[in-house]
Formats: sequence, structure tokens, C-alpha cells
Amino acid sequence: MLIVMKADATEREIDDVLSVINELGFRAHAMPGANRTAIGITGNPGSIDPTRFENLPGVAEAIRVTKPYKLITLDLRPEKTVVRVGDAAIGGEELAIIAGPCAIESRAQAFAIAETVRRSGVRFFRGGAYKPRTSPYAFQGLGEEGLKILADVREAYGLKIVTEALDEAGVDMVERYGDMIQLGARNMQNFSLLKRAGRSHLPVLLKRGLSATLDEWLLAAEYVMAEGNYNVVLCERGIRTFAQHTRNTLDLAAIPAVRRISHLPVIVDPSHGTGKNYMVTPLARAGVAVGADGLIVEVHDQPERALSDGAQALTLDQYEALVNEVRAIYEVIAPAHVG
Amino acid sequence: MLIVMKADATEREIDDVLSVINELGFRAHAMPGANRTAIGITGNPGSIDPTRFENLPGVAEAIRVTKPYKLITLDLRPEKTVVRVGDAAIGGEELAIIAGPCAIESRAQAFAIAETVRRSGVRFFRGGAYKPRTSPYAFQGLGEEGLKILADVREAYGLKIVTEALDEAGVDMVERYGDMIQLGARNMQNFSLLKRAGRSHLPVLLKRGLSATLDEWLLAAEYVMAEGNYNVVLCERGIRTFAQHTRNTLDLAAIPAVRRISHLPVIVDPSHGTGKNYMVTPLARAGVAVGADGLIVEVHDQPERALSDGAQALTLDQYEALVNEVRAIYEVIAPAHVG
Amino acid sequence: MLIVMKADATEREIDDVLSVINELGFRAHAMPGANRTAIGITGNPGSIDPTRFENLPGVAEAIRVTKPYKLITLDLRPEKTVVRVGDAAIGGEELAIIAGPCAIESRAQAFAIAETVRRSGVRFFRGGAYKPRTSPYAFQGLGEEGLKILADVREAYGLKIVTEALDEAGVDMVERYGDMIQLGARNMQNFSLLKRAGRSHLPVLLKRGLSATLDEWLLAAEYVMAEGNYNVVLCERGIRTFAQHTRNTLDLAAIPAVRRISHLPVIVDPSHGTGKNYMVTPLARAGVAVGADGLIVEVHDQPERALSDGAQALTLDQYEALVNEVRAIYEVIAPAHVG
Amino acid sequence: MLIVMKADATEREIDDVLSVINELGFRAHAMPGANRTAIGITGNPGSIDPTRFENLPGVAEAIRVTKPYKLITLDLRPEKTVVRVGDAAIGGEELAIIAGPCAIESRAQAFAIAETVRRSGVRFFRGGAYKPRTSPYAFQGLGEEGLKILADVREAYGLKIVTEALDEAGVDMVERYGDMIQLGARNMQNFSLLKRAGRSHLPVLLKRGLSATLDEWLLAAEYVMAEGNYNVVLCERGIRTFAQHTRNTLDLAAIPAVRRISHLPVIVDPSHGTGKNYMVTPLARAGVAVGADGLIVEVHDQPERALSDGAQALTLDQYEALVNEVRAIYEVIAPAHVG
Repeated sequence: MLIVMKADATEREIDDVLSVINELGFRAHAMPGANRTAIGITGNPGSIDPTRFENLPGVAEAIRVTKPYKLITLDLRPEKTVVRVGDAAIGGEELAIIAGPCAIESRAQAFAIAETVRRSGVRFFRGGAYKPRTSPYAFQGLGEEGLKILADVREAYGLKIVTEALDEAGVDMVERYGDMIQLGARNMQNFSLLKRAGRSHLPVLLKRGLSATLDEWLLAAEYVMAEGNYNVVLCERGIRTFAQHTRNTLDLAAIPAVRRISHLPVIVDPSHGTGKNYMVTPLARAGVAVGADGLIVEVHDQPERALSDGAQALTLDQYEALVNEVRAIYEVIAPAHVG
Repeated sequence: MLIVMKADATEREIDDVLSVINELGFRAHAMPGANRTAIGITGNPGSIDPTRFENLPGVAEAIRVTKPYKLITLDLRPEKTVVRVGDAAIGGEELAIIAGPCAIESRAQAFAIAETVRRSGVRFFRGGAYKPRTSPYAFQGLGEEGLKILADVREAYGLKIVTEALDEAGVDMVERYGDMIQLGARNMQNFSLLKRAGRSHLPVLLKRGLSATLDEWLLAAEYVMAEGNYNVVLCERGIRTFAQHTRNTLDLAAIPAVRRISHLPVIVDPSHGTGKNYMVTPLARAGVAVGADGLIVEVHDQPERALSDGAQALTLDQYEALVNEVRAIYEVIAPAHVG
Repeated sequence: MLIVMKADATEREIDDVLSVINELGFRAHAMPGANRTAIGITGNPGSIDPTRFENLPGVAEAIRVTKPYKLITLDLRPEKTVVRVGDAAIGGEELAIIAGPCAIESRAQAFAIAETVRRSGVRFFRGGAYKPRTSPYAFQGLGEEGLKILADVREAYGLKIVTEALDEAGVDMVERYGDMIQLGARNMQNFSLLKRAGRSHLPVLLKRGLSATLDEWLLAAEYVMAEGNYNVVLCERGIRTFAQHTRNTLDLAAIPAVRRISHLPVIVDPSHGTGKNYMVTPLARAGVAVGADGLIVEVHDQPERALSDGAQALTLDQYEALVNEVRAIYEVIAPAHVG
Repeated sequence: MLIVMKADATEREIDDVLSVINELGFRAHAMPGANRTAIGITGNPGSIDPTRFENLPGVAEAIRVTKPYKLITLDLRPEKTVVRVGDAAIGGEELAIIAGPCAIESRAQAFAIAETVRRSGVRFFRGGAYKPRTSPYAFQGLGEEGLKILADVREAYGLKIVTEALDEAGVDMVERYGDMIQLGARNMQNFSLLKRAGRSHLPVLLKRGLSATLDEWLLAAEYVMAEGNYNVVLCERGIRTFAQHTRNTLDLAAIPAVRRISHLPVIVDPSHGTGKNYMVTPLARAGVAVGADGLIVEVHDQPERALSDGAQALTLDQYEALVNEVRAIYEVIAPAHVG
């Protein structure tokens, strides 16, 4: 914590701030400058709320210095975590791709898509059984019926099942039928849900919230890890900005930013990140080129009839082309990636 | 829904779009223009996903026209709803004020603040027993112990208790001890929680999410109402923008915008909306002047020792001055308000 | 400036940072902590680019502390500046209102509106002769012809003329015909224009840019003042956010934020700040209630035929009602205002 | 334009809107629906201001359909424009790279960097002689002296010179010494400057404004083209969002979005787009992978001593590695690119 005093702060005001710091049991470092005095604080075990000092007389600003996370940091663990999902992995040497429909709509649909996903050599299958929908009148997913179809897809094709839990009861269900719990953007700060996922034996795919700062996102992962579940994969899926040409603005700079701080693997969702079919492949290429550990993409055998998010779903042909393109790019950047 | 065709769309492509619309059972209205053709769609029972048409050949854009909400609208109910909380009300003739600490920290703290709140003639007391905190290592609230203190405050001072539920179990608890369920910004699209609150007999205070559009916020209220609970009060509490001089950007234009569409009462939270003590009173005045039905403000008897959000809490003296100022403004604008 | 070292920074890396600081002629203050070392810098005459240190080995972050402005600050001048425009003033005891059409369209239009403005007792008349338009094909203003009409309005009604300059030649023209130079949001960082306005004898109305931080806005005022023109009035006119229910998001928290740092008067533009007729009056009330020194509003005798921005212009009747409402609020908050 | 009537709009109100449309000389298409009536407008020569209709009684919303640009569109010119700069080009078969320091600081600095740029086979050299700086007290560039150094670099190395003009006089200067006029983000809607550049014989590099929508950016290009200069290259350089881990948020989805509408070439600036040295190379890779026609990057022989933007400048070694990486990616995606 750094306290910046006002230019006209009195000696008395500076002394009072020093006293408060000492009373709290921390160590104060006064730094008189030409125009104003700054006071550093050390010795605080965790992070201090900067605003606690901002209303003291003579204080211009209080600036937080220490970051409030521990478990997600490279300080704790300098090598990248490889999250294992059965015999597959995210964060390892191979580019991880998770593909499938937005929502499971029927057995026929799921199998048609899984057939193609399997043939492409991809290891993970996605599909929502419980769908978070902005409107209460929109299709809400097949529920447990959808999960059973997913379990059958796993059986038939050997794909790992990644599917979303909307609440604590949902985590129970994913544990019964799936391989990896997806926590959605709207639930990134649903702390009860984060804690429940933290007590699961399944790995967690944690999507970034629409307006989450990097710190908030990493602290959401910290919530899961603080409960004992260290198998967390982060997923950048676009943030909300003024821009209207995409549904969200895919923030690819988040990938190197996460890398610089955390050992957790991070993947990119170009489907939700853009919301437009024609943008998915270019942004998937960009996501791999920027250094992501993988992608999650929506594929549908009949996008024009999809019950949700049809506009962004790739056709089976587009999907196959995408997989080829991103693998070629991954090969080119592999040295940078590993380095 | 309006489909805009590309300038170079062929007759064939236009006919294909018309066919798709007819197949879906809707009515198509072609409007040939000088440069391009537009096609209106009517007869759709609910809202159509615009993106469903955007990938058809020859289509430039698909624009949603019908809004996807029903129960919250002035179309359904032209007069403003008055939400009754026992013998108090929000949305009626009197300016509603909800005041109290961010978190209940102790019986002594709660009673000291409630004493002042009561004396000011204000009817609602706020205080968190379960706190949503960005960091897992921050103070998470007293839990049921805090709710018991709140119930005692009600007993002692006759104040209505407004307190947050973080999950479905939390709603059970608020039903046991409180008078009004607060749903926080981070949970605005926690659909399981919205549905549970919609089955409660208590009124709901629904805060706007940090990056929620007006439509998303109103649809969150629609989720609660669709379950049968029509006693919903909306609360503007600031949105996330690039601006750094406040914690959030209080979007006061949301108040007239809600008014123009919905019969639900709407209040303003200048404490979270700014995050800075010195901004709370000016923005509270502005919130009343813009036409809000009430305010929710954080007050603390010792803000510099608050366990959470101390920097934005008003002192007891500041609180009393605020109440006087906003009541004077409310009197001035009352005619505009009622009109 | 504060340099935060990484947790695993070596002694050598810390020494190297200290050396760089000393070489630059500044004073370094090392603050070893439990987990990491921070280093304060004092003795720097102006502001240092924090990023200069961020690439040094072992550095986690560099945080700017000293603000880069001088002339606009309360440190320099503790009382609020009253900007005089002939015998009228902005920032004084009276609420300043600037009213008139978006663009001057004809003598008849200008006089019809000015007649009403004059009758309301308001002292300032606005009207654009050179219009910044997003599209090159939109109405660009009457040019010098418009300025001549404005000069005639001044002659006939004694109103002070506030009008926009788009470039350096435009400042020459406003100096010939007007009383106050308006610099628009799109030009807030047109530094050549700021410097030219800084060499004018006329006062300057400086609108905030659509995505300007508080610091950038204040530094734009600093550009004008650094050339010798101290008569600057700031104007909040809405920022660009994700919200779509208004054209811009009026950031009223900027008013107390400016007040806390600067002696310059600050007014609010609820017309551009919302872009919707029905929002202008509520937000004008809020702008006065939050503590602004004045308002700038668009009025038109026939808004539905306006050549630009018709949708946000008030009718003459709406304008008169607004003036009454905001004056009543100003009276209520005058003590807070002065204090 | 599409007018959506309120659910309770009367026949009379609908008729009135139809009359207004007819009076304006356009054609009205009424579309009665189950809940409400919509009215399409065709026959309008240009774009209509939607807000003109929004205040008419019974109108719920007015939605613009026709886009207000002409010259930049694929409708006008279906193949991508190749902008020629002497014997070099942007938008052709080769990936275009523009490299050099943020600001020209000395002959020695410029030549040291140009030497490396030339050796890498890159054709364009950047360097600012007039620098737009947020603070009036920051280094403002060498002025004409800097341009002379740039002219010497061209002479010595055969590189094409890309440099910024801040005002109309600056365009005169760039015409004298340079090969391509850069218009900066802060000046994207400086319409006087756009028009002046539109009358130049030099090609224009038009950076996107920090808060510019896609339409506003394309209309800024339309301003240049409307004056007769068709040689415009667009440059995505990051937008302003709430995210704080980068200086700006690089919006790579803008590349396919531009492609879908316009024939103009578009490049990416990963240096300003991130503001962090460690992010430049990953985002440069992503920019090429997403399909940009080129890159503009900042390189410095001694970044830690740069007079501006040192933190984002690549070292000479980093620059050489970047060129190799992005060329490898460009080769992989070339087919997609051309297609």
C-alpha cells in the first residue's frame, strides 16, 4: 500500500497517518518529496483496502500494491499447470480443442456432431444441458436428459464431456455424467457456485465474466483453488464494450497477461467472443497465434435450425477447416509457446 | 424482426428468405427500395433470434424489433407499481430510503447505526450477513448470526430489513429473518437464484449487473415475475466503464429509461455507484432529482474501522445531512415525479 | 513513482533499479517487505513514464503517483475560478445556463429561440455555425453566415454567444463574432486547436471527450492554460459505454471529481449526454443537484424539423419548464454548492 | 428506416406517421402485427436521422437500416484496394510491415533503427516528428528537424516514410518530406484535417479512434475519400475499455468486420494496442493470424532511454524475431487471406 499525501498536508496530518499504520501493526516508510510526501506500508499479511486511508485528513490517494491472490500465481508455482481430464489434457504439449453444439437438442444432433469432432482428432466435446438464457421465455436446455445424451456420446466416441453447471445442484449432475465442469461468464462471481466447484473432483473451466478485470477473474479461480480443487482452466470469451460489430470484444491481450501472472492454462472461446459465424475462424486463428492453450468452439450440424446461438455455430465443414488452420498455426508458434 | 438484404442480393436469395419466414409460420412483408430490399416479419408469437437469418445468402443484417419482455411493461400495467413492505412502501408518494452498514459486524454497530436511521424517519434498514467478496480471503459476513442481529434491529426500531441472499439457501434464511430480499449485481443473471426469489413471498430488490444492458436487467426482473412474485424494485448501482475516478459509473439516465418502459419502482445506490465517500451525497441528490423512487446508502458509525467498503460509508452526521438534502429536493420535484 | 519488485527479484536486480533511479538524478527509497521490495522515487521535477521501468529485470509494476498537471489544480489556486463573459459569469453565485439550437439554420429560427431564451432570464445563447458531423454527407452548418446571425442575436437580445470552433481558422471567426469558444468532444485532444484557443482573449468551453479519463480532460484544459488563457470552463457531456438506452452515458460523478482537484468551473450538457428528448430535463435536474455550475441545453422552435440532433432538442415550452425546475433545485442545494 | 409503433398506438397516430413520411417524399410500408404495427420507409436518397421520428406520438422506436457510407463499400468496389506507396504496397500479396521508433529523437537513433528495419526486408519506416502528447509538458517531437532526418533515412535506405500530421500545416510538411500521412486516433474525427488529407496526393494511414464505432471509423475514411483521395489504409490500434491490464484493448474482430464491408486494406498496431512490451509480439502474431494486411510496430535501439512510449518499444532483437514469426504465420494463412 502506498499513501500519497496532498501537497498542502500538514506535519500533523502526516504524523496521524503514520500513527494509524503503526496501530494496525504495519510498518510505515515516509518518503518526503519536493511537492508532497508519500508513505509506503509494508508488513501487512494480506491486502489492505486502500479506501480505508482515503478519507483521513491530508490524504490524496491510497494505492494498492500487493495483489490479493496467492494460489494462482507463478510465485507459488513457476511452471504451467497441465490440467488432466482422464487421458486428455489442457495446458500440455498438444493444442486442446473443445467442440460441440451450444445446447444438446437431441440424440441425433449430438451424435452427428460428435462423429465429426471425433474424426478430427479432437478430444473434448461440449454441449449445454442447462442453458443460462437472458429471457425466461427462451429454450432452457434438456436438463438431465441432455446429460444422459452427453454420457452416451462419451461412451460411443471416447470424447471428454465439458458441460455447464448453473448452480450447486448442477455440479452434482455434471459430476454424475460429465468430465469437466464449465462455469459460465454470468456466474464468474457466483461465489457459492465457485466454492461448490472447488470441492469437486472434476476439473473446472472458468469463463471470464463480461466485465471482469483480470484480478477479479484470477480471484474467482482462487476461490475454486482455495477449496482444494487445483484443476482450473481459464477461458477468455469476450468482454462487454461499446463496440457493436461483435456481440462481445474478444480481449486476446488477456492471454499473455494471464501467462505473466499465473500458472493456470488459458483457452479462448471465439464463438461467444464474437457471436458471428464469419468471425469465428479468424479469431480462433488469432487465439492460437497469441498463445492460448486451446479453443472452445460451437459446431452444429444444422446451424440455421439451432435452438440457441445458431448464428455463431460453425457448420461441420467450417469446423474441419478451422481445426486444420489452427493446427498449422500452432505448429509455427510452438517454440514461442513453450518458451 | 426486420431483414435487410445486401444491395447485390438476387431475386432468388430474396425468395429464399421469404420461404424460410413462411416455413416458420410467420408473415413476411417485402419492401423493395432504391438500393436494397428489406423484409419485415410479423406474426411471430415471441422474439426471434436475429442471428438465425444473418447467415442466409444475400442477407446483410437482421434487426430485432419486438422486445422480449412482457410482465415488466407499461403495456401490461400502465400505472407505477407500489411495492409494499409491511406498512412501508417503495414507489409510493414518499421517497423511500434504505440505510445501514455494508456488513453487519456486531450488535453494537448495528444498533448504533439503526438508532440514527430510525431517528431520521427512514423506514428501511440494510446490512449484509452474507457478503459477496471478490477475494476468498476477505471478510465474508457473520452469516446467520448477522441475520439474528438484523431481526433484533427490526424488533427494537420497527425498521424493515433489506438484506442480500447469495444463493437459494440464502433466500430461505432471508425469508426467516428479513423483510426484503436483495439480489446483488454479481448475481443479476444467476437464473436459479432469480427463480427461487420469484417463488418467495418477500419483495425483491434487484440490483443492476455491472455490465447489464437495460434489456438484460428488465429480463432479470421478468425472471422473478414469471415465477409469480410481482413485488420487484429495481436498483441502479453503477456500471463498469473505462472511467477510473469512481469505482463504477452511476448511470442515472437508466431511471427515466426504466420509467418509459416499466411500471416497476426504481431506486439508486450512490454508495456502490461511486465507491467514494465524498461523492455519495452529491450523487444521492442527483438520483432523487432525476426521479428515482428512493435511495439505498451505506452508513457506518465508525467508517474508518468498517470491515468492508469503509471508504464509501457515510458517517452518522453525513447521513443525517444527506437525508435532509434529498428530502428538500424531492419536495421540489414531486410534481414532475408524479406526472 | 513507485516501483514494485517481483517476489523472486534478486538483490542484484533491486540494486540495478536503484542505480537507474540515481542515474536519472532522482532519489530512491527502498522498502523491503515480507514478500517483496517496493522502491519509492522522489525528487523528479515532473511526471515519469512508469513504463520506463516496467521492462527492467525483476520489476513487477511501476505505479505513477504524482499527477502531471499544475495550473488547473486547487494546489495552485484554492478558490473556484469565476469565468467572466462580459457582464455574465460562469462559476459565480448564479446558475449559468447556455441555451439554443444545435445548429443555426436561419435568422428566423435563431431569433424565435433567442426570444424565448432571453425571456427566461438566461444569459448565454448557443448555436453551431460549423458542425462536426460523423458523415461527410450530413448538414455541415451555415459557416460564417451562421456566425453573422449569432452576432445579430447578441445585438438584439444582449445574449452572450457560445459557438464551436472546429479548427484554428474557426477560432479566428469565433473571435470576430462570438463571446466564448466551444471546443467539442471530438477535438478534446486536438492539441493544435487547444494551443490556438489558449492564445485567444475569449473564454473557452472545453467539452470532455467521449472516452477521456478525468486526467486527460484536465490535461486538455492545462494545454489551454499553459498558453496563457486561464478562462476555461469544463463541460461533462457523456462518455461512451456499452449502454444503448442513451446516446452517451452522462457521468455526473465527474462533477464532484473535478471539484476535488480543480478550481475550474464545470457544467453539464444533458442534451448530448443523453441524446433523447425525454431524458434531458431529468438529467438537467440531476446535473444541478450534483453540484454543476451550469447547464448547456439544446432548444428548437420546431424540433421535428431540425437539421441536426432534432431528437434531443427541447421545445420552447419544455425549455421554460426546465429552467424553472433547475432553478428551484439550485436554490435548495445552494448552501452545499457554495460550501 | 423502420418505425416501430407502441402497442397502444392509435390508428390516428399511425396515420400521422404515415403522413409525415409521405410529406418527406419517401414511401411508407405499414406492417400491422399481432401486438403492434411497424412501418418501413424506402425511397430515401440518403440516411434519415432516426431520432426525427422518435418524438412523434405513438412511436416506440425508430431504427436506422441503410448505412450512411458509399465510397468505402464493397458494394461500390468488390475487390480489395491495393494502396501503392511508390514501389511498395499495402493490401497486396505481401504482408506490409511499418516499423520504427515512436518519435524521431536524433539522427543516430533513426539510422540505427532504420539499418535493422532495412535488413529485415521490411519496406516502411515510421517515426513521429510531431507528437500528440496528453500533457503539454511532455516531449512534443523534433518538428521539421525530425522530418529532415526521416527524409535522409529514405535516401539512405530506400524505406518509405510514414509519419503523423497533427493539423493542416502538418500535412503540408509530410507532403514535403514523407511518403504516407498518418492520422492519429485522437484526430480520427478532426474533420478539417480529414478533408485536408483528402486533398493530398499521398496515401493516408487512418488510425481508429479510442472510442470509435466501426461506422464512425469507416465514415472518417469516407471523409478522406469524398475529397478525392482513395488511397486510405485503416489501422486498428486498440479501443478504450474497462480493462486495465493493457493500455488499450486491441479489437481484432474489427479486421474481419472491416473486410466484410469495405475494400480498404486494414492493418494492426500491437504497440499502441497493448502499451506493454511483452504483449507486442503475441498480439502481432494474432493480428496477422486474424487476417490483417500488415502491422505497424514501434522499435527502438535503446527502449529504456526512449523519450516517449519506451515501455512498448521492441528492442532490435525482439523486432527481428517478431518479423520472422509473423511471416511464418502469414505463409500459413495466405490461402485464407486471399480467399
